[in-house]
Amino acid sequence: MRIVVDAMGGDHAPLAPVSAVCAFAAEHPRVSFTLVGSAAAIRGVRADLPANVEVLPAGSVIEAGEEPVQAVRRKQDSSLVLAAEMVADGRADIMVSAGNTGALVAAGLLVIGRMHGIDRPALAPVLPTFDGRGVLLLDAGATMDAKPQHLLQFAHMGAVYSQYVLGVKRPRVGLLNVGTEAGKGNQLTKATYDLLARSNLAFIGNLEARDLMQGTCDVVVCDGFVGNVVLKLVEGVGLGLFNVLRDALTTNLRAKCGAILLKPTLKPLFKRFDYSEYGGAPFLGVQGGCMKAHGSSNQRAWYAALAQSVRFVEQDLLRKMSAALSEAGAE
Amino acid sequence: MRIVVDAMGGDHAPLAPVSAVCAFAAEHPRVSFTLVGSAAAIRGVRADLPANVEVLPAGSVIEAGEEPVQAVRRKQDSSLVLAAEMVADGRADIMVSAGNTGALVAAGLLVIGRMHGIDRPALAPVLPTFDGRGVLLLDAGATMDAKPQHLLQFAHMGAVYSQYVLGVKRPRVGLLNVGTEAGKGNQLTKATYDLLARSNLAFIGNLEARDLMQGTCDVVVCDGFVGNVVLKLVEGVGLGLFNVLRDALTTNLRAKCGAILLKPTLKPLFKRFDYSEYGGAPFLGVQGGCMKAHGSSNQRAWYAALAQSVRFVEQDLLRKMSAALSEAGAE
Repeated sequence: MRIVVDAMGGDHAPLAPVSAVCAFAAEHPRVSFTLVGSAAAIRGVRADLPANVEVLPAGSVIEAGEEPVQAVRRKQDSSLVLAAEMVADGRADIMVSAGNTGALVAAGLLVIGRMHGIDRPALAPVLPTFDGRGVLLLDAGATMDAKPQHLLQFAHMGAVYSQYVLGVKRPRVGLLNVGTEAGKGNQLTKATYDLLARSNLAFIGNLEARDLMQGTCDVVVCDGFVGNVVLKLVEGVGLGLFNVLRDALTTNLRAKCGAILLKPTLKPLFKRFDYSEYGGAPFLGVQGGCMKAHGSSNQRAWYAALAQSVRFVEQDLLRKMSAALSEAGAE
Repeated sequence: MRIVVDAMGGDHAPLAPVSAVCAFAAEHPRVSFTLVGSAAAIRGVRADLPANVEVLPAGSVIEAGEEPVQAVRRKQDSSLVLAAEMVADGRADIMVSAGNTGALVAAGLLVIGRMHGIDRPALAPVLPTFDGRGVLLLDAGATMDAKPQHLLQFAHMGAVYSQYVLGVKRPRVGLLNVGTEAGKGNQLTKATYDLLARSNLAFIGNLEARDLMQGTCDVVVCDGFVGNVVLKLVEGVGLGLFNVLRDALTTNLRAKCGAILLKPTLKPLFKRFDYSEYGGAPFLGVQGGCMKAHGSSNQRAWYAALAQSVRFVEQDLLRKMSAALSEAGAE
């Protein structure tokens, strides 16, 4: 098994990905790794790479603000495109990048290509839940205008990923909607409800956004526009509240003393909402492994994304998704 | 001016609406009020109503779980339908209810009817922001499948409401989207962007969900599906975090001491996210005043909703929205 890692993507690159890959590689001697990026930058972080880590030099980097499709087309020598080519050629089983999400999606589609039986791909991050288990949300931004059959495919892919990579026995699938009753929603969700209800999935029905973080289901589907809004809103509200709280805890001496007393109680609480505990977001629906690590991934988050990548390959996820989709189509 | 209040809607009815109306009426002797509901229940809360408060007996109540359109059609003698009829007949200028939101929307459309020049109506709650000023979100659930011109109309109605009822001088209008750059989004938001950019509104461009609560704009538009998801997600995340926090603050003696020290700092903070500070959500686009008070409105929240209703009528908002829409159409 070979994992190819974009050493140049993300806020803490190349330090975080290079350090994480080296530490992870030492613990997983039977897995091979390729770090793609500036050889000098990679050697700058670690001069002595483990025996199972090789370097593939890249001539450029796709930056965070670049227009995805153009960037992928123009920067053929970028770390991201070279990583995707390794997966497309079968030289690597899965790629991982913490860089530009849109560019990862574009590289997945243009370089690796769509999976047979999938009309539209989906990005599937794990959203934090109050019980700390998390919920797989798809699509989080790859397919803006989705049709009911796309959401059904998302549900099948998400259920397979949840079961075999995240270890959920029989993943409960929910449809993000504006009410819990059947018949609620817009044209898309009304039609999707019927498809999911007739499927072989453990469909629990509509899920309202207020219950999204309550841990009532394991996989939740929606179109990429709604999913992206949800993902960013949760990030925004979470970050905003914690900032406001942090400021409050240091306003004066009294508050500071209170904060010290509360630290052991609050710390595990904050941890439950820490993205680095939940790992990466697979880009599902392309003919190869493709994992997005959070843009601000630290070494811990990288570790989680690498572990999920190993499971993705070990579990032969592409084949299992394919099987689930053709079984569903044959019903 | 006459305000008609559904005395039976909401979690704390009839106590909260009846008490709030009586207190508010005493302070606003030139405004007349009608309380619609069970006369016995209303008299049970206050036997001696102020001179400017009358009672209109209603034979039934539309409950929270009822299917909106059916309920409005069948329960012609319900407090909600009778209140809407008063507005439709011109016997009252505006109605306020904290009951079933879907039924309020249905009553607004079926009994009061659409405003001239409006294709689809919108529900416009104020979302909390970290700076405590709030942002008007529309549509929050009335129009599930919206077209670009509907969102443009929402923007005009929202801007008028923000200016004349909420007192924002030149409301900044944002389009909820998945990226800040023009050209981002789904078919709906891409087309809406062009309409807003060409309008006479103070359009600030796309707004990402992570910045929604940062107070960077005063009015934000989206379709009713997305708006409802946003509204419920903010409620869910806020409530969930506060519950988790409250539990944490009482786990043990040490945490309790910390909580006591932090109370003066945290209390004003929590207040900024308290819906009762932000008042009601107008149902815009119907030919009459129609205000939704939050379902769990306490007397304070009712007070805010009543004050906004007075401003709505005083400012002659229907005429101003009409003027803004025809001016926009004539551009």
